[in-house]
Amino acid sequence: MPPTGGTDAGAPSAGAPAAPSADEPRPGLSRRGLLGLLGAGAAGIAVGGAGGVAGGLAISSASASGSVEGVHAFFGAHQAGIVTPVQEHLHFAAFDMMARTNRDDLISLLQDWSYAAARMTQGLDVSATGSVGGSLEAPPDDTGEALGLPASSLTITIGVGPSLFGNADGDRYGIASRRPAGLERLPAFLGDDLDPARSDGDLCIQACADDPQVAVHAIRNLSRIAFGRARIRWSQLGFGRTSMTTTSQATPRNLFGFKDGTANILADDTAGLDEHVWVSASDEPAWMAGGSYLVARKIAMIIESWDRVRLSEQQRIVGRSKGEGAPLSGGGEFTAPDFAATDASGQTAIDAASHVRLAHPSRNDGVRILRRGYNFVDGNNELGRLDAGLFFLSYQRAPERFVTIQRALSTDVMNEYIRHVGSGVWAIPPGADQASFVGAGLFA
Amino acid sequence: MPPTGGTDAGAPSAGAPAAPSADEPRPGLSRRGLLGLLGAGAAGIAVGGAGGVAGGLAISSASASGSVEGVHAFFGAHQAGIVTPVQEHLHFAAFDMMARTNRDDLISLLQDWSYAAARMTQGLDVSATGSVGGSLEAPPDDTGEALGLPASSLTITIGVGPSLFGNADGDRYGIASRRPAGLERLPAFLGDDLDPARSDGDLCIQACADDPQVAVHAIRNLSRIAFGRARIRWSQLGFGRTSMTTTSQATPRNLFGFKDGTANILADDTAGLDEHVWVSASDEPAWMAGGSYLVARKIAMIIESWDRVRLSEQQRIVGRSKGEGAPLSGGGEFTAPDFAATDASGQTAIDAASHVRLAHPSRNDGVRILRRGYNFVDGNNELGRLDAGLFFLSYQRAPERFVTIQRALSTDVMNEYIRHVGSGVWAIPPGADQASFVGAGLFA
Repeated sequence: MPPTGGTDAGAPSAGAPAAPSADEPRPGLSRRGLLGLLGAGAAGIAVGGAGGVAGGLAISSASASGSVEGVHAFFGAHQAGIVTPVQEHLHFAAFDMMARTNRDDLISLLQDWSYAAARMTQGLDVSATGSVGGSLEAPPDDTGEALGLPASSLTITIGVGPSLFGNADGDRYGIASRRPAGLERLPAFLGDDLDPARSDGDLCIQACADDPQVAVHAIRNLSRIAFGRARIRWSQLGFGRTSMTTTSQATPRNLFGFKDGTANILADDTAGLDEHVWVSASDEPAWMAGGSYLVARKIAMIIESWDRVRLSEQQRIVGRSKGEGAPLSGGGEFTAPDFAATDASGQTAIDAASHVRLAHPSRNDGVRILRRGYNFVDGNNELGRLDAGLFFLSYQRAPERFVTIQRALSTDVMNEYIRHVGSGVWAIPPGADQASFVGAGLFA
Repeated sequence: MPPTGGTDAGAPSAGAPAAPSADEPRPGLSRRGLLGLLGAGAAGIAVGGAGGVAGGLAISSASASGSVEGVHAFFGAHQAGIVTPVQEHLHFAAFDMMARTNRDDLISLLQDWSYAAARMTQGLDVSATGSVGGSLEAPPDDTGEALGLPASSLTITIGVGPSLFGNADGDRYGIASRRPAGLERLPAFLGDDLDPARSDGDLCIQACADDPQVAVHAIRNLSRIAFGRARIRWSQLGFGRTSMTTTSQATPRNLFGFKDGTANILADDTAGLDEHVWVSASDEPAWMAGGSYLVARKIAMIIESWDRVRLSEQQRIVGRSKGEGAPLSGGGEFTAPDFAATDASGQTAIDAASHVRLAHPSRNDGVRILRRGYNFVDGNNELGRLDAGLFFLSYQRAPERFVTIQRALSTDVMNEYIRHVGSGVWAIPPGADQASFVGAGLFA
């Protein structure tokens, strides 16, 4: 039964030797990862020290320069997916490590993820044999739905959550001493209505791409590679990026119909990024230098109620015009808001309780955050209302900076129209170089 | 508090007369629709004969020619969104009419939907005043999240389900005599695991666009316009179209990693469309001539199990190579499968139980259907597995044609890896001309 399709040409004929032995790790995939791919039950199999900290992650066939259009380097000083121009689609997943996993499991997982992520971001399958290049008598390494699609600006950003450094089972991975002091579950905020099943997670992966199929393919395959070691705790698809990181991108709109992210920190604002986003060499812990902290908030919007608010009130709540997104104190979208300006009646043009004022750096000790959120629609409830909102993502130099702003928003009139239903915070390690993997600093 | 944004320029000043009276219907929106937009409770309000069958639906500011790139005409002999080149994104919603609605409500709803759909497909807001052009002291007619976005190839396709023609409450809308003989809930198929909350519906709207925000905006606003008359029963987002209607589109892949829709009926195959898709003037009922029938099936894929199947078996089940999508009897993607061809061992190259053979017209009295499905990922279950699959959509000249093929698939080995969890069938009326609305034939 020889298939004749062109891309099958590299496959051995049906009579050729079958599946690779589980005792022969292929370059860059640990034996545990390989076992997962082959569908063997990994739990209870003694793997020993498979996969050292450094080992074979270099992708010879892929450029790490990021110079090809629609292709972003995975390796580098910072992880991609933070200042990278915001792509159109998101698939985000939080993972929990499985019970009875150990330090070697975590190391091999981060190695395997880095290896596969480096390949996929270059538009390649997760392994050299990939979707159709392996044995006909084995399951393919790659699930195949992105076969033939370009890299589509895919970025894969990996984070480690507070619980990875210790939970009720103690310091499972021997990394408690590496825990960043500020990496703790976020405090409760006024009005939180958090669902534990949509919050937190030992690890997270943010996959962004201009093609949703490419983002979904990435999360699906990274989840598959994690078999026996970690599994998805919760996940979220998003579209219609609600912020920008370069001025060449138009400011998109959230599902309240307003432009969102106008005053974001831009990728070319090196000083702003160093001040507000990147962990510096003088910050603790040293292994996080060049990294950042990610906060995710799933914010349900009560859109039916919002849609019944008169335009003047919508604008008062936001503090900007709905059309252009200009501050109500005057000017255009990119004019700085003037909180002292008054209107003809003598009141401040921008309401004191408006979102733009409460969140503004001038009200928050100069704190700024890099926003990277997406809109979401998750179907509808039994009343026929769309389950929709904003999947808020922000990167900042320390989690406490998000806390400062979120506390300032406790009196935001907008709170009447939103509910925070999910939450998480993760340390985002610096980027890896080609001989290493994301998170290596946890174990050095 | 005068906003200064450019797009607010047309708005009246804050001191100007406020919301339009509910007694003054604006062109093309019935009074009931207007009441819904204004947030008044519509239930119990006597509306009388607001909105005749013909009335003011022509969109003077929009082209109906479909000649602008990324803009498809709403009006025409057939509804758009059937042979239209398949867009990248889907938002589909099934609606139920509210209790105590009457024939006038249904008529005005279909009028209002047609009016708004005609505008949105041209890249316009739902009404002339739209997102920001109305009174500051009223809620905007349009929710605004598509403001500034192009039409993005949006099509809006409206269907009427079996229950609209009569349910336990009888012939609510006086249209029972118009019911197409074949328009009934689909019969049960082997292996069905249907969730009533994800099946059926009095009405449906298929919104397809190349920007998900545009598709979501359409469903959200049409749902809002339906206030008091109909509400969403269930809805589905999809991405990565799994078929094509022109050869200029590459064949996409479903989440099994295989190309899907290779042998679809193409938009330029006039004879094929007349034979298999469009209801002809000689078919019954006459009001459906130029229309079609839509079947939706939400098909969950057990992707973790599929991903553990060896490549040769995946290909045997499908009957095609995974790489190129060529039939296993040889040739390339577009080579016709040869079900008699044998391999070296003397067995047929294409397995008798393969999907391609069971679904093939030669096995089904020549029946073909036009497929227009999308991939979906709806998050994950508590085992950490992605809730993913295929949202199958097909258009055919009669529902029984789908039934023929689906019955033939009862022995499909692929059934081991899928579950049909949602189902619906709707009559898709012919397109409307600019003086009328979709579904007018129901009441003529």
